[in-house]
Amino acid sequence: MPRRAFPGIAAAALAFSLLAQDGGSLTEQYREVANRLINAALADQGGMEKLTYLCDRIGNRLSGSPALEQAVAWAATQMRSDGLVNVVTPRVRVPHWVRGNESAALLEPVSRPLSILGLGGSVATPKKGITAEVLPVSSFEDLAKKGRNAIQGKIVLFNVPYESYGRTVVYRTAGPSRAARMGAVAVLVRSITPVSIQSPHTGTLEYSDGAPKIPAAAVTIEDALLIQRLVDTGNAVSVHLEMEGHTLPDADSANVIGEIPGREKPEEIVVIGGHLDSWDVGAGAQDDGTGCITALEAAHLIYSVGLHPRRTLRVVFWTNEENGGVGGQAYRDWAGDTVRNHVAAIEMDGGAERPLGFGLTSNGDMQAMLARAGEIGNLLRRIDAGSVQSGGGGADIAPLMHDGVPGLAVRTVGTRYFEWHHTRADTVDKVNLEDLRANIAAMAVMAFVLADMPESLRQIPASTR
Amino acid sequence: MPRRAFPGIAAAALAFSLLAQDGGSLTEQYREVANRLINAALADQGGMEKLTYLCDRIGNRLSGSPALEQAVAWAATQMRSDGLVNVVTPRVRVPHWVRGNESAALLEPVSRPLSILGLGGSVATPKKGITAEVLPVSSFEDLAKKGRNAIQGKIVLFNVPYESYGRTVVYRTAGPSRAARMGAVAVLVRSITPVSIQSPHTGTLEYSDGAPKIPAAAVTIEDALLIQRLVDTGNAVSVHLEMEGHTLPDADSANVIGEIPGREKPEEIVVIGGHLDSWDVGAGAQDDGTGCITALEAAHLIYSVGLHPRRTLRVVFWTNEENGGVGGQAYRDWAGDTVRNHVAAIEMDGGAERPLGFGLTSNGDMQAMLARAGEIGNLLRRIDAGSVQSGGGGADIAPLMHDGVPGLAVRTVGTRYFEWHHTRADTVDKVNLEDLRANIAAMAVMAFVLADMPESLRQIPASTR
Repeated sequence: MPRRAFPGIAAAALAFSLLAQDGGSLTEQYREVANRLINAALADQGGMEKLTYLCDRIGNRLSGSPALEQAVAWAATQMRSDGLVNVVTPRVRVPHWVRGNESAALLEPVSRPLSILGLGGSVATPKKGITAEVLPVSSFEDLAKKGRNAIQGKIVLFNVPYESYGRTVVYRTAGPSRAARMGAVAVLVRSITPVSIQSPHTGTLEYSDGAPKIPAAAVTIEDALLIQRLVDTGNAVSVHLEMEGHTLPDADSANVIGEIPGREKPEEIVVIGGHLDSWDVGAGAQDDGTGCITALEAAHLIYSVGLHPRRTLRVVFWTNEENGGVGGQAYRDWAGDTVRNHVAAIEMDGGAERPLGFGLTSNGDMQAMLARAGEIGNLLRRIDAGSVQSGGGGADIAPLMHDGVPGLAVRTVGTRYFEWHHTRADTVDKVNLEDLRANIAAMAVMAFVLADMPESLRQIPASTR
Repeated sequence: MPRRAFPGIAAAALAFSLLAQDGGSLTEQYREVANRLINAALADQGGMEKLTYLCDRIGNRLSGSPALEQAVAWAATQMRSDGLVNVVTPRVRVPHWVRGNESAALLEPVSRPLSILGLGGSVATPKKGITAEVLPVSSFEDLAKKGRNAIQGKIVLFNVPYESYGRTVVYRTAGPSRAARMGAVAVLVRSITPVSIQSPHTGTLEYSDGAPKIPAAAVTIEDALLIQRLVDTGNAVSVHLEMEGHTLPDADSANVIGEIPGREKPEEIVVIGGHLDSWDVGAGAQDDGTGCITALEAAHLIYSVGLHPRRTLRVVFWTNEENGGVGGQAYRDWAGDTVRNHVAAIEMDGGAERPLGFGLTSNGDMQAMLARAGEIGNLLRRIDAGSVQSGGGGADIAPLMHDGVPGLAVRTVGTRYFEWHHTRADTVDKVNLEDLRANIAAMAVMAFVLADMPESLRQIPASTR
């Protein structure tokens, strides 16, 4: 086309090409609304203020702790003052594990303190502790190869290099019982992290039925490597381990739920949220204060700018994600038959580093759903958070997804999350204000459009491909 | 010049241009020798083995500790078995500070444990500890502005963001006495590091004459920021601090010295080394096991490949760099009048990350010296460690440099050194084998050529520019 000729046609072609590039009608339909939400989010102060209060004033909040009860009460009050209605805190009985004091030291061939964090759910050592030789293994195959005779009476160290959290965490969850079955008296697990500054990472273990329950603790990368080096040079390495970890009767806790009711189809529900509980070290800032606060602030901004979605937007702070997953199941049970009206659920439990977009998983027509969600994603391109990929969900929405609810997860760059995760360093200073705002923007736009789009994500027929 | 014309002239021009590019005669003269040393270093195992023994089996080694005595004995034996002669361990009386137990906690407005490391040289708190309100300050100017009335009876927190170690460390060294003069009862210093995983960094303080000696400890970045946020929201923040740190009478220690005697001018000396002492946490791996071992292994490789430098190459492991600097001065005193025959000194005390080259400082003709040292640097271009810049030296060779000895420092990329420095995480796993080998190569080449070049670095007249 010649330059400057037929300006009318050129403009029409340009508009068409923008539309095509944006992927279709949701993008066009919600552009103005999305920009209002993004603008509000990028200037947001309330998210960081609430997160700071939760982390600094309430602090870490393991299931069964007074701090978690305090967080539940605070969250319900905060939801109400943020404009949410129908705020409820349905009670949930949660596992109640208490760490107590714990310590470990190398005794032979050298005397050194070890930095440990007992694994959540671990039993205690006898009062005087356990002193035993340490046998490092590099995998479950290596454990099996070592054989019962070598393992009997020993402390097994799973010294497994970090590949990814998902690939490596099995040594923390399943390692203790696997070693116990072979006769180990305790387990040390190299912390599941790519980077360490002598920083142990706790996390839950899962005792298997029938296996002896033995104490298990995370050691730092540094200490795991030290033990390995000492063993590799032919030394018998012995460790003394003292742990008071114990499980009390289940405690009272609650999910915290609040809503922006739908204007046309209030019975249809989009759930967004994170888990309110945390481990008992650090402040549960990235894991998962950011998930809760991002969802709450997104809903608050939708309310604040005067938007009323077609469907109900529900914010859920699940309890007991870390050591039981009871909150996610309890929400599913509480929802009852209404689960069939849940049109989507977004869980954020990977921290609030710079967001890239969303992952999506559904047992519906994935290609059609990804295309529609991608149209919403396009609205987030101006903040580089527009990518929508296959593969979403999370522990707390898994019970909903099991019943057919499309599940989404916020995806971030994830550069440093696993350095802080489950450590004393998961504190609010790790949350960058601009990144938190971008997450709030992404959540607000995705949640609002999912709750407002004419045809719900769940009901998209394959023909819309 | 037309292509392919006069091939002989072209080759001559090429050779000339290579020579010019290489910077002159030392480069050409020592190319073969340098390549032998580099090849040996890049295949070296002994360096990492010795460093691992020092860190894993002897461990950290603060002045006055049995471990430092053990390290001195081991180092002397190791030097002898590595081919060095005239190995001596002249005794040095060193400051003897002992940490004892220490702990700190936030009491108000929230109860939180704080991760601290007392500063080296700190006095103890009273037995029952100190409980006081914390006053954060952002600089010495801010401290002065706050005024005596505000500071009296408080714990001052120097919450100063890390700029560089050199720019920020003054708050650790001078902060305690500055605050004490204003009436503070104790000092907390935000750890001097760019990155933290709740990791406190110790280091020496310097009490000023006439100022009350008050206890001082490093807190983590996380805890410093928490206190600041709590204060910024209008809360009175109180901390309880218990420290047992105390200084015993000076202890026996020693510098460790060994040589490859010069074949022609044995009275002229090139010194290379690092400091053998470390802080009392971690293993003193990067600070400064790597400096000692790099120097030792460089000398060992020179010996192993059968090289005999014109001058004496002397390896020195200084004692008490960290909390007194007595070893560096003691070496100078021990050297006596021979200091005038010291033609160069290379200190390595910045860790063994990937080396870039050397820094050089001298009160001689810097331009001429840099040109000559640059010719040696050219020999290290194949391992990208050939840069020679103005600005070298170090605490241990400062007394030599004061007396006119040209001082060099190994320069590395320095990417993570200050994350580990003076922490529990300064362990041998932080040292990358390839990087250590490259440092050994750089040290071996620079040290050998400095010891062998016809005209010594110190005696280069300005006319050689």
